[in-house]
This record gives sequence, structure tokens and C-alpha cells, in this order.
Amino acid sequence: MKTIGIADTTFARFDMGAAAVGELEKTGTGFRVERYTVPGVKDLPVACKKLIEERGCDIVMALGMPGPKDKDKMCAHEASAGLIEAQLMTNKHIIEVFVHEDEAGNDGELAFLADRRTREHAVNAYCLLFRPDHLGRKAGTGQRQGFADENSIRLR
Amino acid sequence: MKTIGIADTTFARFDMGAAAVGELEKTGTGFRVERYTVPGVKDLPVACKKLIEERGCDIVMALGMPGPKDKDKMCAHEASAGLIEAQLMTNKHIIEVFVHEDEAGNDGELAFLADRRTREHAVNAYCLLFRPDHLGRKAGTGQRQGFADENSIRLR
Amino acid sequence: MKTIGIADTTFARFDMGAAAVGELEKTGTGFRVERYTVPGVKDLPVACKKLIEERGCDIVMALGMPGPKDKDKMCAHEASAGLIEAQLMTNKHIIEVFVHEDEAGNDGELAFLADRRTREHAVNAYCLLFRPDHLGRKAGTGQRQGFADENSIRLR
Amino acid sequence: MKTIGIADTTFARFDMGAAAVGELEKTGTGFRVERYTVPGVKDLPVACKKLIEERGCDIVMALGMPGPKDKDKMCAHEASAGLIEAQLMTNKHIIEVFVHEDEAGNDGELAFLADRRTREHAVNAYCLLFRPDHLGRKAGTGQRQGFADENSIRLR
Amino acid sequence: MKTIGIADTTFARFDMGAAAVGELEKTGTGFRVERYTVPGVKDLPVACKKLIEERGCDIVMALGMPGPKDKDKMCAHEASAGLIEAQLMTNKHIIEVFVHEDEAGNDGELAFLADRRTREHAVNAYCLLFRPDHLGRKAGTGQRQGFADENSIRLR
Repeated sequence: MKTIGIADTTFARFDMGAAAVGELEKTGTGFRVERYTVPGVKDLPVACKKLIEERGCDIVMALGMPGPKDKDKMCAHEASAGLIEAQLMTNKHIIEVFVHEDEAGNDGELAFLADRRTREHAVNAYCLLFRPDHLGRKAGTGQRQGFADENSIRLR
Repeated sequence: MKTIGIADTTFARFDMGAAAVGELEKTGTGFRVERYTVPGVKDLPVACKKLIEERGCDIVMALGMPGPKDKDKMCAHEASAGLIEAQLMTNKHIIEVFVHEDEAGNDGELAFLADRRTREHAVNAYCLLFRPDHLGRKAGTGQRQGFADENSIRLR
Repeated sequence: MKTIGIADTTFARFDMGAAAVGELEKTGTGFRVERYTVPGVKDLPVACKKLIEERGCDIVMALGMPGPKDKDKMCAHEASAGLIEAQLMTNKHIIEVFVHEDEAGNDGELAFLADRRTREHAVNAYCLLFRPDHLGRKAGTGQRQGFADENSIRLR
Repeated sequence: MKTIGIADTTFARFDMGAAAVGELEKTGTGFRVERYTVPGVKDLPVACKKLIEERGCDIVMALGMPGPKDKDKMCAHEASAGLIEAQLMTNKHIIEVFVHEDEAGNDGELAFLADRRTREHAVNAYCLLFRPDHLGRKAGTGQRQGFADENSIRLR
Repeated sequence: MKTIGIADTTFARFDMGAAAVGELEKTGTGFRVERYTVPGVKDLPVACKKLIEERGCDIVMALGMPGPKDKDKMCAHEASAGLIEAQLMTNKHIIEVFVHEDEAGNDGELAFLADRRTREHAVNAYCLLFRPDHLGRKAGTGQRQGFADENSIRLR
């Protein structure tokens, strides 16, 4: 039995954690979920590290929705750097799922994007843990999460 | 008995430490407070780490008020990155409460914002330590500290 | 027998991993290859560290194709910083091969650039492991990967 | 007997180290001073760490005068991040005293600013070591080093 | 007998390593030189750390020539941050000598600048190892490497 951690925030305007859990349960079995909610994205790195080191998670999804201001972008950058550092300290993957508020034109699009990106990354987290060969077969194919995939290119 | 650390600065123009202590005492019991005052925000990371490792704090609030210049913004960024690193080194939360001087139009608004953001994050710190389920129930609901909350959104 | 790790992404639009393996096999012998595919460039640092620490790699190539937006540039920066940190934690080289989508004018040029840069860095990785003197002889000679080399300059 | 480290640079155009030592001697007793001079601000982080770990310093002042160009600003940022990291690795304060050349309109103002900021931070370093209560009493009062203090603000 | 490491790149267009070795030999004795050539500046941090930890260097010079594009500036920044981190992990100095291509107006000036900056920093590296008092006497005197020194300033 593996453990998948889900860390999310009260700052986000969409319940990304519920989407992650829902998609994981649709994707496969053999794991249990640990939840951890913090105020904002800058609180996620230590929450993810605690999920790994104190609650035995084998992989973690870090879910956040940074605001549109320059200050928010800087917060997201600091959080991302901390998430990478936390991974290097634990040798475990933390799949960052950040949806920037200004990626969508209105609330409906934002909710759609947050739901879809979270779900597609939930499948990625599952594959990293249980089906790494599935990712290997998609190497270099222009996969995107939330928006449509890009086309893959070849030498002419 | 838990210990909550409050690190603040002589640089800040508002007594955020007093607001934090006041709100914590209104919020609950079962903890004692350790105070630590440093000159500026860049001195906060090691102060918070010392509060955790040398004075036994279980969680710390890092309170600061960065100035409006580009140089001040860079100081705040460096401090934030250090606060995240300090958390990863200790597996303890450090709740950053930074109020940027240019977030408010005048001194009255700035004092109001600094007081309210500090108090709302004091409750967050208390909940992380004693009531994590309270945060879990607010996951993805657009909580803001200091300003009004955002609306939460759903799939249509 | 040495082990060379190849970490790539499903985000990239060109199969850089195949180009790396193909060029390594043309360049020499005495090594085996370990492959690892992750969703995006920010997942590469821990993947490379795991290749070194859990799968015994002596050197790793980290292959990625960051998008053209500001957000993509920041992701690439965060990934690069993490790759340098992973090297410092393991004392092993990780050769970063990033091809930014906006370095090429169209898909054909982008595929050509991704192929050529990956292959030239595959030779660099091979030389760091087996032929460090080959690199020593090219010190200060303006080598570029993917584009034409620069001219070397001397004191007049 | 405590030890206060003073790290400075040959790059700076003002003898900030002499100002620091002079002010420390005027401020109190019970300490000895260790000096360390490096070429530029990017050499300060390891110098400060060596002062702490190899020469027994209890606190260090890191003195530098970054130039006015974008490249100089980036150097200062890299140095600041390193100074924070060095503090987190040692659990000792390193008081950064950087005077940016473009903070002053002419050489006379620059010398005045460098002298005054260094001296005010020397008092801060002394207080962190011997009189932490002095800093505690100034929490949230708008203290500045080199320029005039800001006014403190209260809730209306 | 001390050991001085020289790490350089195949990317640079001028043989900075040869300039460093030449100047060190003119400056003094009591040391041997270890050379290490890597593809680009982002490969320098781990190369320098390996020179210190695996080849016994007491100090290292990290020589590079970043290109003029924004992407090159970011590479230089990432490399610089890594070099500072490597120093903090080893308690040894790594003297960064980076010459940005856009610091000079043409190839002749660039070669002159690269040669002179490398040589002046070779003397700095030698002094840090054998003659720290020489640097101490130049504290706060506006030393520059490659360009003319600045004037030093005093209180009026």
C-alpha cells in the first residue's frame, strides 16, 4: 500500500484537493491519501516535506492558485523553489499544480482550468508511483495539463 | 504546553508583534509565546530557526513590513526564500506575515492592514498547531488575510 | 562499466531522449543507460538525483524544452537552480540540455536545434566521464551546442 | 568574552570595517573583534561562515558597497541570499550592511551614508549579542540605518 | 604545499585558464595547480566542489564568459548562486571570474578585459591563501578587476 499526499491551500478559490482525490480514485488502487491544508502557497513546501517525512507519503501533489499581482508571482516563485528543494531533501516527487488566476479570462474558465490541470497531474502522480513506463512512452510528445496538448515535432 | 514564536523587526512601522500576541491570547490556550526582535526582514530567517531550535518553538510567526523601493522588494524576496529554507531545515511552519508599505494608500490604511493581516494569520498559526481540521474545511475557499476574502468558484 | 542517466519530459515536443541515447551509442562504449521520464522540467532535479542515488548513475543528462511565456522562463530558472543544487548534493555532473521554444523560428528549426544540442551535449557528457582531456583541449574556444561555435579570441 | 566578526571588501570605496570597529568599541565591552577582508560581496558569505566556524565568532557584520549597474545589483542579491543561507547553516546572525553606490548623490553623501549605516548596524549587532531587550523595545518603530528613522503608526 | 584549482569552460572565447595559471606562477610559490574544464558556467559549481573535495584544492578560481542574451544572464546568475552554495558547503573560497561578453565593445577589448580580470583575481586568490594581510590593507579602497580601480572616499 502506497501513500499519496495532497497539500492544498485556503487561499485557492477552487477546491483543487477534491479534484485530485476524485481523479486518483478513478485512476487506480493500491494507495491511500493523506490531506494537509495550509493558508498559502509559501506554506506548501514544509507541508509537503512533513507529509513525506512524518506521514509516510511516497509522492505528494502540491496544489495552489497564485494571484495575478507581481507580488503573487514572486510568492509562487518562492514556493516553487522550496518545493524543488523539498524534493531534493527527501528523494520523493512533489508534483506542483499551480493555476495562476490570470491564466483564465473569467471565473468559469478558471474553475475549468483548475479542475482539469489538477486531474491530469493526478494521473501523472499516479503514473510516477505505479506506471513509470506510461510516462516513458509519452516522452517528448508535447503533453500539457489543463490546456490542449501541443503537437510533437520530428526532424525533417 | 506548546510554544509559539513571534519574530518581528525594528524596521516595521507598526507593532505587529503586539497584534499577534493579542490575537493569539484571544484565540485559545495551551501555548506560551517566545518573542524575538531583529533589525530587518533579512534577519528573520535565522531568528525563526533559533526560536525553533534553541527556544523550543513548535511554530513561528515572522512579521515584517518591507519598504516600497525595488531594493526593499528584493530584501523581502530574499527573506521569504530564507524563511522557506528554515522551515525545510526544521520541519516546522513559519507563517510569514509581510505587509508591503505600498499595499496601502496612507498611514491609517497601512496600520489597519498590518493589524488585520497579523491577526488573521495568528489564527492560522493557532489552527496549524491545534486545529488543522479548521483549515481543511476552508481549503479552496479564497481566504485572504488583511483584505476581504475572494469568492470561491465551482465547475458550471 | 559506467552508468549514464537520461532524464526527459512528456512536456517537450521533440524526443530528446532518443537523440541522447543515439548519440551516446555512436560516441563510445563502456556504459549503460538509465532512462527516467517526468512530466515537466521542474520534476527533473529530483529525478536526476534519484538516477544518481538510487540507480547508480555516474552522470546524468537533463533534457527539457521550456515554453515561450514568462511563466515558462521562470519554471526553467527554478529547474536550473534545482539541477545545480542536485549536483552539489551528489558531487556528480548533471548536464542540462534545455531548448527554449522561442530559440527557433518554426517547428522544423526547433526540431533541428533540439536534436543537435542534445547530441553535442551527449558528447560533452561522455567526455566528462571518459575523456576529460578532450574538454581541456577546448577550454576557452567558444564552443556552442546547437548553434555554430563562436570564434575564439586572443590578446593582440 | 564574546567574538564579533567583521568581514569587508577591497571593492568598497569607504573603509566600513574601521567604522564598525570604532563604533563597537564606543558601544560596549566584553568582546574581541576578528577581521576578514575579501575582494567583493560575493566572497562574503563563506568568509562570514569561516569567521563563525573557524574563528569562533558569535555574530558577524558583513560590510559591502555594491556598484550601480544591473550586474552589481545581481551580485548583491546573490551575496544576500548566501548570507542568509550561512546564517541558517550556523544559527548565528550575520548583519548585512550593504550601501549601494546609487543611494547617494555624490561621494560626500556616500561616505556619510556608509559611515552612519555601518555604525547604526554595529549597535544592532552589539544589541543582538548583549542587549536583545533593547531591540525588543524598538519593535515596530520604523528604525532605519543611515537615513532618518520613519514615523511609527498606530490604529486610529 | 597548497593546491589551487582552476575550473574553466569550453564556452568561453578566451583561454582564461592559461591566464590564471600564468599569473599564479608569476605571483608566488608553495602551491600546485589542478585544472578542470567543463562545457559552460552552469557546470562550474559542481566542478569546483569536486576540485575541493576530490582533488584536495584549498581554493578554486571559477572562470567563465557568459553571453550577452537575457538567457545567458540568467545562466550566469544560476551559476553564481551555485558557486556561493558550494563555498558554504566546503568552507573554501571559490573566486568567481566572470567576464560578460557585453562588457566590451569588440573582440580586442574583450580579450584584454578577460586576461586582466583573470590575472587580478589570480592575485586575489593567491592572497586569500597566503597573504590575507595584503587584502586587509586594501579594505575599502575601491579595487576593481579588469577595469581601473575606483577612488576611495572619506568623511569630510
